[in-house]
Amino acid sequence: MTAHQTSRARGKMVNGFDPSKTDGLAPGTLQRIDRRADLLGPAYRLFYADPVTFTRASGVKMYDADGNDYLDAYNNVVSVGHCHPRVVAAVHEQMQTLCTHTRYLHDGILDFAENLLATYEPEIGHLMLTCTGSEANDLALRMAKYHTGNRGIIVTSEAYHGNSELTSGFSPSMGENSPLGAFVRRVPAPDTYRVDTADMGEWLAGEVARQIHDLKRRGEGLAAFICDSLFSSDGIFAHSEDILAPVAKVVREAGGLMIADEVQSGFGRSGSHMWGYQRHDLVPDIVTMGKPMGNGYPVAGVAMRPEVVADFGHDMRYFNTFGGNTVAVAAAAATLAVIQDEGLAANAETVGGILMDGLKDLAGRHDRIGDVRGAGLYIGVELVGDRETKTPDSRSALAIVNAMRKRRVLISATGFNANVLKIRPPLVFTTADADRFLTELDGALNDTA
Amino acid sequence: MTAHQTSRARGKMVNGFDPSKTDGLAPGTLQRIDRRADLLGPAYRLFYADPVTFTRASGVKMYDADGNDYLDAYNNVVSVGHCHPRVVAAVHEQMQTLCTHTRYLHDGILDFAENLLATYEPEIGHLMLTCTGSEANDLALRMAKYHTGNRGIIVTSEAYHGNSELTSGFSPSMGENSPLGAFVRRVPAPDTYRVDTADMGEWLAGEVARQIHDLKRRGEGLAAFICDSLFSSDGIFAHSEDILAPVAKVVREAGGLMIADEVQSGFGRSGSHMWGYQRHDLVPDIVTMGKPMGNGYPVAGVAMRPEVVADFGHDMRYFNTFGGNTVAVAAAAATLAVIQDEGLAANAETVGGILMDGLKDLAGRHDRIGDVRGAGLYIGVELVGDRETKTPDSRSALAIVNAMRKRRVLISATGFNANVLKIRPPLVFTTADADRFLTELDGALNDTA
Repeated sequence: MTAHQTSRARGKMVNGFDPSKTDGLAPGTLQRIDRRADLLGPAYRLFYADPVTFTRASGVKMYDADGNDYLDAYNNVVSVGHCHPRVVAAVHEQMQTLCTHTRYLHDGILDFAENLLATYEPEIGHLMLTCTGSEANDLALRMAKYHTGNRGIIVTSEAYHGNSELTSGFSPSMGENSPLGAFVRRVPAPDTYRVDTADMGEWLAGEVARQIHDLKRRGEGLAAFICDSLFSSDGIFAHSEDILAPVAKVVREAGGLMIADEVQSGFGRSGSHMWGYQRHDLVPDIVTMGKPMGNGYPVAGVAMRPEVVADFGHDMRYFNTFGGNTVAVAAAAATLAVIQDEGLAANAETVGGILMDGLKDLAGRHDRIGDVRGAGLYIGVELVGDRETKTPDSRSALAIVNAMRKRRVLISATGFNANVLKIRPPLVFTTADADRFLTELDGALNDTA
Repeated sequence: MTAHQTSRARGKMVNGFDPSKTDGLAPGTLQRIDRRADLLGPAYRLFYADPVTFTRASGVKMYDADGNDYLDAYNNVVSVGHCHPRVVAAVHEQMQTLCTHTRYLHDGILDFAENLLATYEPEIGHLMLTCTGSEANDLALRMAKYHTGNRGIIVTSEAYHGNSELTSGFSPSMGENSPLGAFVRRVPAPDTYRVDTADMGEWLAGEVARQIHDLKRRGEGLAAFICDSLFSSDGIFAHSEDILAPVAKVVREAGGLMIADEVQSGFGRSGSHMWGYQRHDLVPDIVTMGKPMGNGYPVAGVAMRPEVVADFGHDMRYFNTFGGNTVAVAAAAATLAVIQDEGLAANAETVGGILMDGLKDLAGRHDRIGDVRGAGLYIGVELVGDRETKTPDSRSALAIVNAMRKRRVLISATGFNANVLKIRPPLVFTTADADRFLTELDGALNDTA
């Protein structure tokens, strides 16, 4: 271990496995962990004190090597359910037919773009495809910088927007060792549990305006404000009223763009709308999307008002070898069709509501639950040491996440203090799944009391 | 059209379709081009004066809607052949079973990493997986910067290394409107056709040393030198002798890392070796790979000496939602197995040699061919106006590429002047395919004389 390493904390990760604590792990688990460190190196992290090996999955269930089923209340990528047959078939069919890139003509990408763009307001006119949400956010910011001529970016204080050099540079949730760009400014998240304000939109706009002022006096100017409308890594905050229109006003007055990062909140996750920002009175300049877009197939995208890409597209070009290839499009088209045909946004609304009610019931019996919040099937349960002082109870959150894993229910935690349970199942979660979830969470709260 | 647009040239692309020239295009083609501009916006480019619509493909053949077959001598992504049944089956099988990320344990990624790392020198100890070559190069440079504490990057003058903010910033081939980073320095490519030197390695090392000096006096220092060992976008230069060891010497003396970008030259493409850099006396610090890795499935990676990622991995972490997911690994494992089991590097060597001989024969009959060069199945044919002055003949190159498309053979062009035919077929190209190719190229040279 170098001096460098001893003097710095290991890069934090919520619910990360600690390789110095291997007591009691099964021999097979230990052997895989060792092999993984040998082959993949030190930058990867595993979930849970006792990492899980999965061998198959279906719907909302994942199975370990012994055939035990786990209720998946965490994985938002497989949004229409693990191994959904329609997506599997669409990919298989297209892979047997043609897998090629966007420099030849193909109807698949055009039909898909038409269907996807129809889910946005008419102002959002163009779609570009990438492979990952990181690539989508990287491209969105490149465009915003080129369009505005400015460099400054404003994010929320624990935001996560990607793993590229540019996007990790405005992802403070990557931890204290991960370099932030000099062009980045942070605002506190619109925390419905702790911020005391009669008007959260005006409050947030005021915070943003202060950072715009600072960017301007440093000569950066404002390229964009970017947020995920459920503020996932800040601790999950959903707002019953519009808070983004006042922010858009100050951002646009400063010449900046509004970017809605829908990688987490998009594709029906928030229940009432296809896109999280649509819960607000806002049409963004750029929308980015990713994770659930192909139900696990690497596909992501950027949709935008045409004026934002006009000069960028004319003066330069964008090509992504795999982005928007015929198979990626087949995966994304099938996933979108399933979300629409199976009414999964409505299901997220209904089952999410049942979960929220059940969690509020649990809060009546478990004092550590300080707050229950969310929208659709993206729910946060904040654990506190004391409901008056609202002291974050990170230890409980971690203990509960691991107790749930023992009970074979998958969740994680989020927020700066990692004291917010993150509940984010595939959108095909049923009321029976919600019942099982609530029973096990009640048990896990008792286990860890 | 804005003033901005009229004052700047449209972002250049070799062999790009010019939307102002639509005379004579088929109605179906025109309709798709218009629809595409409406839906996907202005940043996408199409190949050819008469863009092609493909509907299916198999092996080295692609088919248009009328059932015409095209000989694919361009697409290196589908390296083991379009729609290879073994890759299709492996992806299908895994998609039906489990598609999940690297924060759970899974044997697939470990078995694959072991097999892939076995193709490198023992010094290359770890593998990390991303979705695209751009992500691989972005991550490689992030690591190099963190490891060395320096920012400077040296590339060849027409290099291409990716489409992210960071990687497009050191990809001068993106054109004069695309911003280059202030931390980037360029060296001329080791051009075997034009550079007059008895020792290309020492010559290149001298050029690199000059740029290191400049980076140092500007306070940047050197993080890395990165090159593709076939210098694809510079015009395709293969060297029969080692030229990279002398470069590595000056780079490492300056505290920098050697990054081999194997996105183009890797996975058997160069014929004699699995990796292009292995044609030189070099073990890189970091190797990046991409395009052909999953035969079209979005998967890419970074392999490295363990010391390079030690602090980066400890202090921070890396997670890529789709990178190294179980299906991406299944695609990559099947593709690697096919390359090895079908002896495709050896086939590239053999058929590449036949193509080279045939092209040299053509040069005997066509004065415009100034130079034929390459390795394995990556071949450049440089067109010149005059063999004495070596004036680049960009017009001929473009005319030939389009004449070949009419003859239903797919190639493109490369190099600063776009006067080098780029011949880069799937590795399953046969001697019969080479014959058809040579016949058609002879014809296209006559057509355009």
